[in-house]
Amino acid sequence: MANNIERPLDLLNNSKNKEVLVHLKGGNQFVGILVAFDIHINLVLDNTKEMQNNEIKRNIGLTFLRGDTIIFISPASFSSKKE
Amino acid sequence: MANNIERPLDLLNNSKNKEVLVHLKGGNQFVGILVAFDIHINLVLDNTKEMQNNEIKRNIGLTFLRGDTIIFISPASFSSKKE
Amino acid sequence: MANNIERPLDLLNNSKNKEVLVHLKGGNQFVGILVAFDIHINLVLDNTKEMQNNEIKRNIGLTFLRGDTIIFISPASFSSKKE
Amino acid sequence: MANNIERPLDLLNNSKNKEVLVHLKGGNQFVGILVAFDIHINLVLDNTKEMQNNEIKRNIGLTFLRGDTIIFISPASFSSKKE
Amino acid sequence: MANNIERPLDLLNNSKNKEVLVHLKGGNQFVGILVAFDIHINLVLDNTKEMQNNEIKRNIGLTFLRGDTIIFISPASFSSKKE
Amino acid sequence: MANNIERPLDLLNNSKNKEVLVHLKGGNQFVGILVAFDIHINLVLDNTKEMQNNEIKRNIGLTFLRGDTIIFISPASFSSKKE
Amino acid sequence: MANNIERPLDLLNNSKNKEVLVHLKGGNQFVGILVAFDIHINLVLDNTKEMQNNEIKRNIGLTFLRGDTIIFISPASFSSKKE
Repeated sequence: MANNIERPLDLLNNSKNKEVLVHLKGGNQFVGILVAFDIHINLVLDNTKEMQNNEIKRNIGLTFLRGDTIIFISPASFSSKKE
Repeated sequence: MANNIERPLDLLNNSKNKEVLVHLKGGNQFVGILVAFDIHINLVLDNTKEMQNNEIKRNIGLTFLRGDTIIFISPASFSSKKE
Repeated sequence: MANNIERPLDLLNNSKNKEVLVHLKGGNQFVGILVAFDIHINLVLDNTKEMQNNEIKRNIGLTFLRGDTIIFISPASFSSKKE
Repeated sequence: MANNIERPLDLLNNSKNKEVLVHLKGGNQFVGILVAFDIHINLVLDNTKEMQNNEIKRNIGLTFLRGDTIIFISPASFSSKKE
Repeated sequence: MANNIERPLDLLNNSKNKEVLVHLKGGNQFVGILVAFDIHINLVLDNTKEMQNNEIKRNIGLTFLRGDTIIFISPASFSSKKE
Repeated sequence: MANNIERPLDLLNNSKNKEVLVHLKGGNQFVGILVAFDIHINLVLDNTKEMQNNEIKRNIGLTFLRGDTIIFISPASFSSKKE
Repeated sequence: MANNIERPLDLLNNSKNKEVLVHLKGGNQFVGILVAFDIHINLVLDNTKEMQNNEIKRNIGLTFLRGDTIIFISPASFSSKKE
């Protein structure tokens, strides 16, 4: 999957309609289907779950996440590597 | 609802006149009717309630929220998923 | 009052010469008459009172508030909703 | 004094050569004569006193204050309202 | 390796497809293969491992890291110097 | 000295080759001869001393200080006012 | 060495290929040979050593340091002044 990534945003583009893990600066973690993103790394996730200690804390459905609170976004969810 | 979202701001546009849940960096949570937003993610909510532990802390009515304090905005309120 | 708000700054414009409640990032709360604002959400309040636990901590009269410290601005003061 | 204020910076302009109270994000408070300001809200104060608990902590004379550390600037000094 | 570095981004360019160590502001440490970067220092790492006390905390595979959370990026991994 | 200051940067220009006291956001204090500055308030100080409790903690000689960490810069050093 | 410094970046230019001490906002300290810098004060250091209490904590070799985490950069290393 890393072969066709020239710029960082290419990974986000490749991850559309797939489940991503998102870590925020305050320690919040979300898992959801990546619906949309922009150059500010603002995201829309669907079927979003707020996670705590690898367990679902609550379902928040469709969600707009502001880019400037994000640390990392990984299409490989839950500590398991998928390539 | 996720079908017609091309860019993150589309979700905010679709959520106009609907109830949204807003989480801020300092831990504050607000629920209110989304009246307006701009590209800085500044929001105006109507009928705004400041929440604490899923209970209403106080009513603050019409409110201007500065975008740079926002973590996420979800049209699905109160830990229940709506699609 | 929410009917004629197309963009977030419209609420501030509608609130000119009215009392607003302003919450800052550090926890400070101010109540005062909104005299002026700009696109950075810098404000001038008149008759400004610094509040603590819903009581007046001190009067600071005319005050310039820097926009980047603001969390929210509400024309509905003191936990009571006015529409 | 609030009558001729159209934009927030007008208050700073009206306060030139007058004593202002300045609160910074870290909790520092300064009182001094406003000598100059710019659009970043950088200030020069003369006769600057660093305050603590409404008492003078030290005199630092002419001082350049960086705008991005400022919470509010009030021409009404020391918790007493002057109009 | 330092000989052909005129500008800081040259080091990142030279490190493509090599293992880098990345330290973030919150204390997080990642090791992974540098796949892509942009002028905001947004990164994509492959085979990313989150580290804690020099041990692998978890594998997160392909990952987008936002540039503004990064303190330093070093092609020399694990406290050992390679030139 | 305040007479010829129209804009805040004029004070820095007047302070060139003079000793200044610089307070940073993290609490660090430096005293040194102001050699150069730019519009970001980046500074170069010569003969720089890091201060703690009004005593010299260490000499760091010529130093580049990034503007965005600065709270205030005062040509009047060590809590004593000089005009 | 201060004689030919007109602007702050001149000091960085004069320090190329020399050892510099870099202090970051989180308290980290690095010593290394300055290889490159840009207007964002992003740096590349070679032979970089992370310091703690004036002792070497670890060698991290060639390193890219993001400018916005930097407090100061001094060509005079280890608390001793060199002119």
